[in-house]
Amino acid sequence: MAYAGRCYHDAFMAEYSIGLDLGGTNLRAAAIDRDGHILDRRATATNPEAGREAMLSHMVKAIVELRQACGSGSLAGIGIGVPGFILLKEGIIRNSNNIACLNDFPIRAEIERRLGTRVILENDANAAALGEKWMGAGRDVDDLVLLTLGTGVGGGIISGGKVLRGYLGMAGELGHVTVVQDGNPCGCGNQGCLEKHASATAITAMASMLRLGDNLSARDVYDLAAAGNEKAHQVFVAMGRALGVVLAMLVNIFNFPLYLLSGGLLPAWDLFAPPMLEEARRRSFPFRTTDTRIEKATLGNEAGLYGAACLSWVEAPMAERAKTE
Amino acid sequence: MAYAGRCYHDAFMAEYSIGLDLGGTNLRAAAIDRDGHILDRRATATNPEAGREAMLSHMVKAIVELRQACGSGSLAGIGIGVPGFILLKEGIIRNSNNIACLNDFPIRAEIERRLGTRVILENDANAAALGEKWMGAGRDVDDLVLLTLGTGVGGGIISGGKVLRGYLGMAGELGHVTVVQDGNPCGCGNQGCLEKHASATAITAMASMLRLGDNLSARDVYDLAAAGNEKAHQVFVAMGRALGVVLAMLVNIFNFPLYLLSGGLLPAWDLFAPPMLEEARRRSFPFRTTDTRIEKATLGNEAGLYGAACLSWVEAPMAERAKTE
Repeated sequence: MAYAGRCYHDAFMAEYSIGLDLGGTNLRAAAIDRDGHILDRRATATNPEAGREAMLSHMVKAIVELRQACGSGSLAGIGIGVPGFILLKEGIIRNSNNIACLNDFPIRAEIERRLGTRVILENDANAAALGEKWMGAGRDVDDLVLLTLGTGVGGGIISGGKVLRGYLGMAGELGHVTVVQDGNPCGCGNQGCLEKHASATAITAMASMLRLGDNLSARDVYDLAAAGNEKAHQVFVAMGRALGVVLAMLVNIFNFPLYLLSGGLLPAWDLFAPPMLEEARRRSFPFRTTDTRIEKATLGNEAGLYGAACLSWVEAPMAERAKTE
Repeated sequence: MAYAGRCYHDAFMAEYSIGLDLGGTNLRAAAIDRDGHILDRRATATNPEAGREAMLSHMVKAIVELRQACGSGSLAGIGIGVPGFILLKEGIIRNSNNIACLNDFPIRAEIERRLGTRVILENDANAAALGEKWMGAGRDVDDLVLLTLGTGVGGGIISGGKVLRGYLGMAGELGHVTVVQDGNPCGCGNQGCLEKHASATAITAMASMLRLGDNLSARDVYDLAAAGNEKAHQVFVAMGRALGVVLAMLVNIFNFPLYLLSGGLLPAWDLFAPPMLEEARRRSFPFRTTDTRIEKATLGNEAGLYGAACLSWVEAPMAERAKTE
C-alpha cells in the first residue's frame, strides 16, 4: 500500500471521518476533517481476482493506518463507497459487476467485526454525488443528480442534502434507465440502458460497429474525432443524445436545480455536450424555460472519497435507523 | 354550486382543512378533519371558457361556504390542486393545457387577497399522490410514485411523506418522460412522451391508426377489446408496455416500495397491467428481485381532494419558507 500523505499536526485533536472508495481498479482511502481538508490518505491497486480476503484486509489495513496517523483526533465515522446495488439494511452488495467476489457477502458486518466499530456502506456513485454536494460543484444546492460516465454509467441523487437511497438502498441506478426501447442488450436484463449507449464500453462498441477499428479505447475514438474523423464524431453525438434524453427525463421528474456529469469520459465534454444539451432542451419544458443547470462535476476521482467520508456526518442517523429496525 | 353534504355536528370544534381540486371539468372542494373524515363538500362544473373571474369566484365561494358550514372549528389551512406546471414560490400556474385562462396569473395571491388568508398551491397529480399516501393505497409507506392515467398522464412523487416538488415546484411531470425516442410529438416540445402513448387521448389515436373507428373514446376501445377484438386489445398492450418502460425507470431511479396507478383508465387494468408488469420485470433488476409493488390506487377521484386538504398539515412549513425566501 502506497503511503500518499502525512497527517497534519493541527488535526491531531480535530474531528475527522474516514472515507473509502472501493473500485474494480483502485482502493482509495482518506481521513478528512469537517471542513473538507484531507488529513491523510492511502491508495492501493485492487485486484478482485485475488479474492475477498485480500480485498477485505486491504480495506481494514487502510482504515487502521489512517486512525493511527490521526492520533487523538475524534473519529466521527467510517464510510465506504462500493460499486453495485447495495442492500442498505443488510449491509450487503447485492450485485456488483466489477467486484463479484464481494457479491452477497455481509461486507459491512465483517469489516465492523474486524475493526470493532460501525461503518456505513454506500453505492460509489451515490457517494460521489454526496461528495460533489459537500465539496464540489454542488456546494450551493441541496438537490442534485450526478451521472458518472466511465466503463459503465452510475448515478447518484442528492435530495434535501442527503443521498436518496430508496427503501432498500438501491436508488439512483441511472445507468439502467431505458433510453432506446429496442436498444443494445444489458447484463441487468433490460435492453437500451443508458449505460449501453453512453459509457466507454458503448463508445468502443459503436466504433467497432462503424468499422473505425477493433477494440479502440474511448480515448482512441476521442483522438480520432478530435482529428476530424466524422464517424468518430458521430459516436460522441450518439452518446450526447442518449444523455440528453435521460437528462430531460431527470429534469422533468425531479425539477432539481443542478445535474452533474463526471467520470473518465468527462474530457470528451466538448464533443458530447452540444448534442446532449440540445436534446435536453428539446425534450424538457422545465429545462428550456428555467435556469436549471447541466454542468461538469469538479472533484473528479476524489468525489467518492469525499462523499464516503461525509456519510458519517450526513447519513449516520439513517444508517443507525436501518440497523435497529 | 351543488350542495353535497352536511357538516357533522361533532366537528364544529375540530381542527379541519379545506382542500380544492380544480380540473378542466369539475371543481371539487371539501372540509376534512385530521382523521380524514369529510365534514362537508361542494362540487360544481368548471367552465374554463367562462373565464378567469368565474373560476376564481367559484373557488372562493366554495371555500367561504365550507368555512361557514364548519362553524367554530379551527381551520388548519387551505390547499388547492391545479393542473399544470406550478411555480411554487410565485404561486403561479406556469402552463396548464386544461385551464389556459389561469396561465401566468398570480392565482395564489389573488385567492389569498379575496379570502384574507393564506392558501397552498399544488399540482393536482402531486396532491393526488399525497392523498393516496394519507388515506389511500399508500398509507403504509412514506415513499411512493403515482401515475394518473386520464386525458393526459400526470405524476406525483411522495418522498419521506412529503411531495417532492423540486426547486420551482415543477417536479413529477411523469407524463412527459420520453418513452419512445422518435415517438408521437407532444405539445411540451418533446416527442414520444409517456402521455402520447398511455393516455385516453393516445388510445383514441392508436385506435384511429388501426382503423378501428374515428373518434372512438377510450371506453369504446375498451369495450371492443373486452368483446374480443384483437386490434383493440393490442392498443392496451401498447399502452401497458409504455407504462412498463417508465415504471421500470422509476423503480431504478427511486427504489421506492410502491408505485400506484389511478385515473379514468384504471378500469382497463386487466388489459394493460399484464404487459405493463412483464415489461417492468424485464427492464428493472430491483423490481424483479425485490418486493417492490405496482398497484391500483384506491381513492379514485377523491385522492386530489384529500391531498389538497392534507397539504395544510404536511406542506405548510415549506410553503411558508417559499413565501419568505
